[in-house]
Amino acid sequence: MGPLATVDFLRKLIEETPAAGDEEHIPLIATSIPQIPSRPLAIVAGGASPLPAMLACLRTLKAAGADAVAIPCNTAHHWYDELTREGGLPVIHIADAACDAVAARGLAGGTVGLIATRGTVAAGFYQRRFAARGLALECSTPEEQQRWVLPAVAAVKRNALAEAHALAVPACEALRARGARAIVLACTETPLAIEHAPCAVAASCIDATRALARACVAWWQRARAAVEA
Amino acid sequence: MGPLATVDFLRKLIEETPAAGDEEHIPLIATSIPQIPSRPLAIVAGGASPLPAMLACLRTLKAAGADAVAIPCNTAHHWYDELTREGGLPVIHIADAACDAVAARGLAGGTVGLIATRGTVAAGFYQRRFAARGLALECSTPEEQQRWVLPAVAAVKRNALAEAHALAVPACEALRARGARAIVLACTETPLAIEHAPCAVAASCIDATRALARACVAWWQRARAAVEA
Repeated sequence: MGPLATVDFLRKLIEETPAAGDEEHIPLIATSIPQIPSRPLAIVAGGASPLPAMLACLRTLKAAGADAVAIPCNTAHHWYDELTREGGLPVIHIADAACDAVAARGLAGGTVGLIATRGTVAAGFYQRRFAARGLALECSTPEEQQRWVLPAVAAVKRNALAEAHALAVPACEALRARGARAIVLACTETPLAIEHAPCAVAASCIDATRALARACVAWWQRARAAVEA
Repeated sequence: MGPLATVDFLRKLIEETPAAGDEEHIPLIATSIPQIPSRPLAIVAGGASPLPAMLACLRTLKAAGADAVAIPCNTAHHWYDELTREGGLPVIHIADAACDAVAARGLAGGTVGLIATRGTVAAGFYQRRFAARGLALECSTPEEQQRWVLPAVAAVKRNALAEAHALAVPACEALRARGARAIVLACTETPLAIEHAPCAVAASCIDATRALARACVAWWQRARAAVEA
């Protein structure tokens, strides 16, 4: 729900859509309301809940004719049950999409690293999905979180991508050094940081934003096939 | 209204917004309906009018709470009067924004090139604005349009940016060779083509998409100041 993460998701959605011209792209409506209360602060520090504002967005999207919703903010999925129950639209889950991407790399039984906000780590939905697939999870230590992950996310949010890159790379390298065979970039600001410049760790990274875009394209193709059948 | 041009506009809107964090960015709602009938074909070849679909988008945006609208498609501004009259929202005009960017370069009295669809050229709104500011206009010849501009736009629409770049550069160079001191990229696909790789002609280009983003930020700052006053 950072504005740049939203744009990154929309760009990846276009890239993942097989289309020869405008008319084959997915019709969509997007709300970008950067004033929604911080999701991580609500989870780990008792801050204001973002749920009412997120539900208002879902109602806007539904009124505009949306048939399904993608939320390019991992931490927001802490409220997944409430959002789907009260929002009235199916929400394509970013962590399910990311876990499918991990599975596609043939990593069953290995250790996978997670770069995420403290809120996403505390929420636990990635841990539950990884465990269900037999994957061990390696998270950033509190020191790594404080030194690298949080400042990288904040840097993306003020469009300082070179600075964000220099912070995100060591955060990933630390997880690799502790045995992670792949690293899920499970905060939608972090792919922007890693992709800003070439780096060795990029090959190990699984971009949850791109995974969500792929899941949306698959949803769209199924929905269109159902209408045409 | 090409999907990639819409994302390019949203990215430039973020880049042009002075913000230290999420909450200082502009709240927005975006519709991207790539199935809207072709604007150039409606103007130059008697194709289906895009106006009803564009008005439907404006009604969606108004119902969602929008206070002003930006349309990152130059050719769509052929219907500017109908859109503002029947859409019920102020529309920030992309050609006014681009002309302000030309003026900011101190080009009064010179010749300015225009890279645009045949529909935008035929619509005439850029010509009228340039003439009002004492600027001579240099357009692509029909041969240049056919050989370079149209294929460049089509290439962006299928995300083939390297190909689009190789087509857009000679289209700009031809205008430079005929005396254009600056070139307005007045089709929102073309900045994506030019920016894809470094090129000498880029320094002469004025990006109508970025100009529109700047005009939106200025609108937002005025609107916020009015609320706070």
